[in-house]
Amino acid sequence: MPGTRGRRPSGSNTREAIVAAAAHQFAELGYPRTTLRGIAREAGVDTRLVTHYFGSKQELFVTVVELPFDPDQVLETVLTGGPEGVGLRLATFALTMLEAPAARRTMTGLLRAAASEDEAAHLVRDLLTTRILVPLARGIGGDDPELRASLLGSQVAGLVVARHIVGLERLADADPATLAAAVAPVFQHYLTADLASPVQRA
Amino acid sequence: MPGTRGRRPSGSNTREAIVAAAAHQFAELGYPRTTLRGIAREAGVDTRLVTHYFGSKQELFVTVVELPFDPDQVLETVLTGGPEGVGLRLATFALTMLEAPAARRTMTGLLRAAASEDEAAHLVRDLLTTRILVPLARGIGGDDPELRASLLGSQVAGLVVARHIVGLERLADADPATLAAAVAPVFQHYLTADLASPVQRA
Repeated sequence: MPGTRGRRPSGSNTREAIVAAAAHQFAELGYPRTTLRGIAREAGVDTRLVTHYFGSKQELFVTVVELPFDPDQVLETVLTGGPEGVGLRLATFALTMLEAPAARRTMTGLLRAAASEDEAAHLVRDLLTTRILVPLARGIGGDDPELRASLLGSQVAGLVVARHIVGLERLADADPATLAAAVAPVFQHYLTADLASPVQRA
Repeated sequence: MPGTRGRRPSGSNTREAIVAAAAHQFAELGYPRTTLRGIAREAGVDTRLVTHYFGSKQELFVTVVELPFDPDQVLETVLTGGPEGVGLRLATFALTMLEAPAARRTMTGLLRAAASEDEAAHLVRDLLTTRILVPLARGIGGDDPELRASLLGSQVAGLVVARHIVGLERLADADPATLAAAVAPVFQHYLTADLASPVQRA
């Protein structure tokens, strides 16, 4: 990216102004209704400058977004108690977290951004698997933590997509405790089971 | 939709021309690189006419898309043998189907469309849950087939997103048989387990 060379004297202030405006507008309007033009207007710069520094709306979003939880704290909570019950602890955390409208907006925004652009997909991957799911699978200690983390990620992403983006009725209607009970054995399976055994039954 | 009233004499021919051009371009270029303007050019009509009949690229895609499988045939294959082993049969079907590049393009296109627009999300929901997942859950005979179908849908959608859109390495690299073995117990759980029991372990 040419923008990172810093040839503009006021580069870092401009960058900060754009980040602040973007964080504000994504939080206020949600991901779909936010535009680069609106962000540029609030930051007092030309839209082309936003593109120059951040490439696209998707990349900008993933750059400014703050996860609606502290990964270290979540890891501690979910890992405490070891393998037994880890599926239910993870399911309870994830579904409770998604009840808060702001958290839900962030997570659906991340997935919408990842679904629509490869560069954003990279960033989302780093944010979610590297920072939380791989350390979780490592902490539980099974073989192939990367595969386990990816399978967990697929089910978490699928729940957000099906429940909050596509809006499958029975998922959208169900209360978090019901869903946590239903998906807990799945998370438990991905974290602790022998994944290579095809005859195993849930 | 005003376009469906057929007040234009050449309406149905125009509509067909747009549908044919769209089917061709989505298949040829994939969902992200196809544009309404390109479709209009191939159909020999103005872009506004495409919007008039179909609303948006997302809606047009979901209207012209053909599922890369015959739902009735899949249902028969997966249901034969009853509840025992249904998870593995469904997992094997889904992961084998997604190996074909054309099928993968269709499924990722459906999810990208659903993720970016509510109207498309409605159509995708009808296409996948109504036509295949709910009848499957009904065929197995557990309680609350809609909830089971939605949970299945969440895991299938999550796999497509994580493996083929976000590209989580270990999922993208894994061979279909390995993944089928890993997710089979999850599908089995969603189709046959007592979902309300939080102490159950996979």
